[in-house]
Amino acid sequence: FQINRSVEQPVVIMLTAFVFVVALVSQTAARYTANWTSLDARPLPSWYDEAKLGIFIHWGVFSVPGFVNEWFWWYWQGQQPPDQKCVNYMSKNYPPGFSYPQFAPQFHAQFFDPGEWADIFKASGAKYVVLTAKHHEGFTNWGSPYSWNWNSVDTGPHRDLVQDLGDAVRSRSLHYGLYNSLYEWFHPLYLMDKKNGFKTQVFVMDKLLPELYNMVVRYKPDVIWSDGDWEAPDTYWNSTEFLAWLYSDSPVKDTVVTNDRWGAGCPCKHGGFYNCKDKYTPGQLPTHKWEKCTSVDKLSWGYRRDMRISELMDLPTIIKDLVQTVALGGNYLLNVGPTPDGMIPTVFEERLRGVGAWLEINGEAIYASKPWRVQAENSTIPIWYTSKGTTVYAILTAKPPKPTVQLLEPKTSPITKVTLLGNPKPLSWSPIQPNAGLVILLPELPYIPGQAWTLRLDNIQ
Amino acid sequence: FQINRSVEQPVVIMLTAFVFVVALVSQTAARYTANWTSLDARPLPSWYDEAKLGIFIHWGVFSVPGFVNEWFWWYWQGQQPPDQKCVNYMSKNYPPGFSYPQFAPQFHAQFFDPGEWADIFKASGAKYVVLTAKHHEGFTNWGSPYSWNWNSVDTGPHRDLVQDLGDAVRSRSLHYGLYNSLYEWFHPLYLMDKKNGFKTQVFVMDKLLPELYNMVVRYKPDVIWSDGDWEAPDTYWNSTEFLAWLYSDSPVKDTVVTNDRWGAGCPCKHGGFYNCKDKYTPGQLPTHKWEKCTSVDKLSWGYRRDMRISELMDLPTIIKDLVQTVALGGNYLLNVGPTPDGMIPTVFEERLRGVGAWLEINGEAIYASKPWRVQAENSTIPIWYTSKGTTVYAILTAKPPKPTVQLLEPKTSPITKVTLLGNPKPLSWSPIQPNAGLVILLPELPYIPGQAWTLRLDNIQ
Amino acid sequence: FQINRSVEQPVVIMLTAFVFVVALVSQTAARYTANWTSLDARPLPSWYDEAKLGIFIHWGVFSVPGFVNEWFWWYWQGQQPPDQKCVNYMSKNYPPGFSYPQFAPQFHAQFFDPGEWADIFKASGAKYVVLTAKHHEGFTNWGSPYSWNWNSVDTGPHRDLVQDLGDAVRSRSLHYGLYNSLYEWFHPLYLMDKKNGFKTQVFVMDKLLPELYNMVVRYKPDVIWSDGDWEAPDTYWNSTEFLAWLYSDSPVKDTVVTNDRWGAGCPCKHGGFYNCKDKYTPGQLPTHKWEKCTSVDKLSWGYRRDMRISELMDLPTIIKDLVQTVALGGNYLLNVGPTPDGMIPTVFEERLRGVGAWLEINGEAIYASKPWRVQAENSTIPIWYTSKGTTVYAILTAKPPKPTVQLLEPKTSPITKVTLLGNPKPLSWSPIQPNAGLVILLPELPYIPGQAWTLRLDNIQ
Amino acid sequence: FQINRSVEQPVVIMLTAFVFVVALVSQTAARYTANWTSLDARPLPSWYDEAKLGIFIHWGVFSVPGFVNEWFWWYWQGQQPPDQKCVNYMSKNYPPGFSYPQFAPQFHAQFFDPGEWADIFKASGAKYVVLTAKHHEGFTNWGSPYSWNWNSVDTGPHRDLVQDLGDAVRSRSLHYGLYNSLYEWFHPLYLMDKKNGFKTQVFVMDKLLPELYNMVVRYKPDVIWSDGDWEAPDTYWNSTEFLAWLYSDSPVKDTVVTNDRWGAGCPCKHGGFYNCKDKYTPGQLPTHKWEKCTSVDKLSWGYRRDMRISELMDLPTIIKDLVQTVALGGNYLLNVGPTPDGMIPTVFEERLRGVGAWLEINGEAIYASKPWRVQAENSTIPIWYTSKGTTVYAILTAKPPKPTVQLLEPKTSPITKVTLLGNPKPLSWSPIQPNAGLVILLPELPYIPGQAWTLRLDNIQ
Repeated sequence: FQINRSVEQPVVIMLTAFVFVVALVSQTAARYTANWTSLDARPLPSWYDEAKLGIFIHWGVFSVPGFVNEWFWWYWQGQQPPDQKCVNYMSKNYPPGFSYPQFAPQFHAQFFDPGEWADIFKASGAKYVVLTAKHHEGFTNWGSPYSWNWNSVDTGPHRDLVQDLGDAVRSRSLHYGLYNSLYEWFHPLYLMDKKNGFKTQVFVMDKLLPELYNMVVRYKPDVIWSDGDWEAPDTYWNSTEFLAWLYSDSPVKDTVVTNDRWGAGCPCKHGGFYNCKDKYTPGQLPTHKWEKCTSVDKLSWGYRRDMRISELMDLPTIIKDLVQTVALGGNYLLNVGPTPDGMIPTVFEERLRGVGAWLEINGEAIYASKPWRVQAENSTIPIWYTSKGTTVYAILTAKPPKPTVQLLEPKTSPITKVTLLGNPKPLSWSPIQPNAGLVILLPELPYIPGQAWTLRLDNIQ
Repeated sequence: FQINRSVEQPVVIMLTAFVFVVALVSQTAARYTANWTSLDARPLPSWYDEAKLGIFIHWGVFSVPGFVNEWFWWYWQGQQPPDQKCVNYMSKNYPPGFSYPQFAPQFHAQFFDPGEWADIFKASGAKYVVLTAKHHEGFTNWGSPYSWNWNSVDTGPHRDLVQDLGDAVRSRSLHYGLYNSLYEWFHPLYLMDKKNGFKTQVFVMDKLLPELYNMVVRYKPDVIWSDGDWEAPDTYWNSTEFLAWLYSDSPVKDTVVTNDRWGAGCPCKHGGFYNCKDKYTPGQLPTHKWEKCTSVDKLSWGYRRDMRISELMDLPTIIKDLVQTVALGGNYLLNVGPTPDGMIPTVFEERLRGVGAWLEINGEAIYASKPWRVQAENSTIPIWYTSKGTTVYAILTAKPPKPTVQLLEPKTSPITKVTLLGNPKPLSWSPIQPNAGLVILLPELPYIPGQAWTLRLDNIQ
Repeated sequence: FQINRSVEQPVVIMLTAFVFVVALVSQTAARYTANWTSLDARPLPSWYDEAKLGIFIHWGVFSVPGFVNEWFWWYWQGQQPPDQKCVNYMSKNYPPGFSYPQFAPQFHAQFFDPGEWADIFKASGAKYVVLTAKHHEGFTNWGSPYSWNWNSVDTGPHRDLVQDLGDAVRSRSLHYGLYNSLYEWFHPLYLMDKKNGFKTQVFVMDKLLPELYNMVVRYKPDVIWSDGDWEAPDTYWNSTEFLAWLYSDSPVKDTVVTNDRWGAGCPCKHGGFYNCKDKYTPGQLPTHKWEKCTSVDKLSWGYRRDMRISELMDLPTIIKDLVQTVALGGNYLLNVGPTPDGMIPTVFEERLRGVGAWLEINGEAIYASKPWRVQAENSTIPIWYTSKGTTVYAILTAKPPKPTVQLLEPKTSPITKVTLLGNPKPLSWSPIQPNAGLVILLPELPYIPGQAWTLRLDNIQ
Repeated sequence: FQINRSVEQPVVIMLTAFVFVVALVSQTAARYTANWTSLDARPLPSWYDEAKLGIFIHWGVFSVPGFVNEWFWWYWQGQQPPDQKCVNYMSKNYPPGFSYPQFAPQFHAQFFDPGEWADIFKASGAKYVVLTAKHHEGFTNWGSPYSWNWNSVDTGPHRDLVQDLGDAVRSRSLHYGLYNSLYEWFHPLYLMDKKNGFKTQVFVMDKLLPELYNMVVRYKPDVIWSDGDWEAPDTYWNSTEFLAWLYSDSPVKDTVVTNDRWGAGCPCKHGGFYNCKDKYTPGQLPTHKWEKCTSVDKLSWGYRRDMRISELMDLPTIIKDLVQTVALGGNYLLNVGPTPDGMIPTVFEERLRGVGAWLEINGEAIYASKPWRVQAENSTIPIWYTSKGTTVYAILTAKPPKPTVQLLEPKTSPITKVTLLGNPKPLSWSPIQPNAGLVILLPELPYIPGQAWTLRLDNIQ
């Protein structure tokens, strides 16, 4: 039995928020209204498509148990029946009655040096960084007044992680985004609404939205990476109202991008860029800007204390995945899970620096590139294409068995020029058929841990 | 910078609550409106004045540090400047960054046996028991959905203490009350409202009131012992609206009593019975029902790990205090602070059983008594009066130096009869003047740890 | 399979110790040899019999769990089968793999003020204080180099408790004794010797004796209260060698007293004063000086967090027990168990101060008294006798039902004088028969929480 | 002031041990006496020189703080003045009074799977594994009865780590060695001896030697990797007596190898193989078998929670170091520090598997090889030589700039045959001068993360 507040409430709130915000913004350009037709029509700010590579960071209280993955709490105490592996782990290693929030004080972050992290991200060649400001556990990595004693300022790190990382990231000219989970597995007000078939919105009105507005205004994120939307429709979350405000009146209205997780049925259909599903890769070139989020640790987004090397992507796999994603018009958001102590595990650091070393030479084929007429071919070895005007980049993701490589799709002309990125000398080539395909004589390919090489073809028809 | 909800919100809420509640109640008797004139006119349910003695229990996370008193958190981190004793205690015994909520898991209550507690309270002769459902720290001793992870079900005892103690207490025919603090020292929404000069009511609307309504409906307390009201006016707390509902529509409308702590300026002026200040005793007979709350531990309401015997009230002092309070028309609410393990310290148990042993003999002069025409006299030794119709009780709170005692105030008649409670034989007496005063020949007074004896005078004019 | 050192070792050690010690002592008075005939012949230093009342303190890591009693570790993990209550308590409240030594850091003693303790002991009227320097758990309350990281200096209090309490106690003119357990339940070297049928003495040679010599030389205790002897004969413990040194050559040779727990078969037969069994009281006057050790908490010597008042001795019971013990020629060693925080629970403090208040008036009948010809009589109420020359003390441990009391045993003479201690006026009395018995007219007996009163009879034949 | 046992004691012990052990061994081959002349004359069991590569594991309570390095305790509380970095770290992150042994319960090893570890070690190509059975902190990774509550069975893992790893390692046909520290920084008996100028041997007799004998007999290690010897001469440690027993009478007398850390002045001079200093590499071919111990983490042997990738050796560096060591006649003992949870950090796993992948192809030039006449030459790129009879291996630790490589030292003959390991086809070569030097025509060198390639030259004079 609960005294529930009615659904009328939001109107009052939104009106108040509206009045308030109007006072803030002096001149407005484009304005959006709270429906998908209007919101979906907003063009993505251009920085995002040019960036291509972002770093995703899953960091929270889940990093403390560091077991199974960042859904640990849910597996242990949420889902029915619970995951016996998690139940046993807890009963074997913790006292009866130990509750998940007791992990928070061990989220110590004592070694957390945001400058060091940002240096690693910069060195990876990424152009944006997305941090979990709040994951499904509800713990905020900033001092949210709506999350008392369940945030990184009141407990654990005793620090505004969102701010501190943001400052470091931005001072290195990287864009900064925030991941925010709409639902919170165990928030009692959410559970109350859920029990009510989402006909009440106590959680949304008293917790979610005040916190989200507050977060946007405080930290001015370039990306709002929304998640945890699937249990309820966007009308429950008040997503369109929020986005109308975000795009029309918020301090980040001109620069912010969002994804598509704004309610059951929204992904791959509404919002900003599309994530569709986790680690989703389309079979062919999509018509809408998309992003592939994936994780170095193939089994988890959050830190795991019991990682084995066989469970991690190696560098060539990552490079291949990045190349394919960009060839297909996507952005690549590569995830690492820092330790509760505040370190990026060395094996992740090595991967990120490896990506950066590869981009140092091959980045020209990635950043600000556009998908080409043809995205891939497989005549001898797997090759992915990107382009900039009449320049086409053919990226070899394996070493060719012979010192020549054959490309069937590019249509050459006499002034076509072929070079290997990182190698100043033009390469000899000859057309296979007039205007269709060419054979290129390769130099010895340099040892590169990334094991992919880019041929630049200038003046392709 | 905060997105604040406006003050209009409550209206919506109260309307909703109203509609909801009207559906519940079929027949209503008296109805009260949300103003003090109406509310103050409500007569106190009769059980309360007859009860005379209650037990107060301060139990919460503050019982874990058990240092200085239950305000420890405030002294340590709230007040400016903080109390150096507390600051030093923490820095000497806890790691840097240790936060108060980390005490909660040690609020273990592993020995808590509500039946055992209730047996002790019953044995004390008390007729009601008041437990801190929520003190200023905000921790609720029940699973409040508005206090996620900061309640006794989610952490610490993992138990509904309010329910469990209530069941035990009521099964022994004792009344059951709940202490509730309006303010919460460190709740960020409260601090936000406070910063706004209490012109916003986010805390009241999103936290305090939903929780309080919920508590009343769930546990149906016989007493709501309100506290923590002083920083803001009752208009901020929405006190009159709450009380109008409580008295008119709540499930306890016919039985509940409340005190007077409903906003700055209210105590000793509005509400149910008056507490006025902590440990307040009036100089003469008040016109309004009142209650003296006091604590066996003179320095604290909550458990202290470093109690010394000299800091505790001894039994004779307690009995004297109880007698004086009842003689002056008050109720006596005697506090004990249980340990975080769930035990009532033996020295408190001894005091409570001592009070009960005294009441076993002398309770007739206490329970359901009325103040007499004269409340005290001090002709030879201190004497306090209570009465029931023409029976007057003269309670001697010290042993007279001689085997006679002289009472100046009672007006005897020939059929006046004098007995010592606990002693079947009538005592010899003689009038001092016709109709004014008498001298009584005492028997040897029995050894009683409480060191107070009652003379019953029947048929006094 | 173990490399065991042979039994020959001790000889070498004792020789070395001998040489060493001889160098220290310049003049020796009495000398004792390492056999019971010699050792048992040593007269007890006189201070001990005169003292009558001592305070026993059980304080150690066992105070931290504070559950069941100070044998908790043994019940939980030693005895076969283990005590299910203890096993369940641990599995319910602690993580799997929690080991007993992990309690040590919580033996914090942060409130320990030895001056305050000593004031309480002084106020109790006791003349000596015995602290557990090392109980069966092996934890030493001083920085024993033979007990690395398992002593109060290396962990927990980080303090030399033996020294600090000793200083405080002695500065108040109280004698200071140390309890020392010979065996240690779980010491692997002890278990090794035990497994070898006590034919090896690795534990005794490498651990027990070096530590015990060290303790004596460091702290110069007035009492060595030996315990934990029962599993092995004194020849295993090398008890007679140790005592010969203690009595002949140690720095406390002239003042120290010991008890009788020096090996299986020793108690009630060899050593200094006799404890026989815990809480042992003889049926009639023994011929050898003895001591009754007992505890305010009837169920435990160490602190229990879940004490109930019904499990504690009340003051009248303690006084009766003390009186009976002294009348029978014994000393009374009354135990209290401090908390791991370093406090003497208030209920114990109250008891001790109550004993002191009683001794304030009646101590003359206790201190330096001798058993009388007759120790007790029960003509009307229970009466215990003590004496000093021709003065006889008759202690009434209940209030007589009438204002007279009849004593059958004392043989009066005309100059016999009777007074009530605490009352200056001589009392009227009359002989029952010539020279046998008397009837005394009592004044009103004052209210005394101890509920025992002493009649002093001067000039008894 | 201490009762010290005299130095005579050991004799008794050794005699006892001797008698005991003689009973055990039936037939003895070589016998050694307790002097360096005898001991140094013992030939090394042959398995050791053939093995070439071992894995060193530093695992202990120091893995829990995982800060600075495994000497953390010493830096924090031992050395004078202490290391401020360590002092600050502790005061910032732990409560006052936190003692190092309190880290032990967090040495949880909950993920420790010895089979998984052994698989990794096997995959690395190593032929032996050396685990820290006891480091300078004194904590034993087995249930030593001489280290009560300071071993992995009584606390932390509650497991015999020495046994469990040994079983797994041996079942994969790897040899198993144990590291043992002679001194213990903070053992009070050691500190006592040290204070006595090492004229007493209480620590050695009561702790070190009984434990060491016990360890050898229990676990039968193939290597005893001694350390912590430098503060005292071998006469204090009784090293020669121990080694005489080890070589003549112990259960591992025929197979065990030891190093040279048996007392101040011993390293590089006495014992089994020589380690000389940590990470020591000789300038030229030594005459005595030696071993280079080094660590993937350049800054620590134990696990560090704040490793950066730049502080680790990369794979090519490790391979170069291994090759150089073997060329100079040494063994290579490569260290990794597991986490307190029982995992080998993935970055270490990657290194070890990388070494194994390299050895898969090039191991023939390493295992059971002998140093060649010339160990290295540097005509064009750095080249190291090993040999087996008339086969010489020339290991290129960098990629030659040209497709030919020139070797000046090998003296060819017409039947000399040159191959690249991993490549079946013989390579073309031609002599530079008759009998002195050759030029080899290289194939394209395969991509190998180890970045070193071996030329096998058969039939070299």
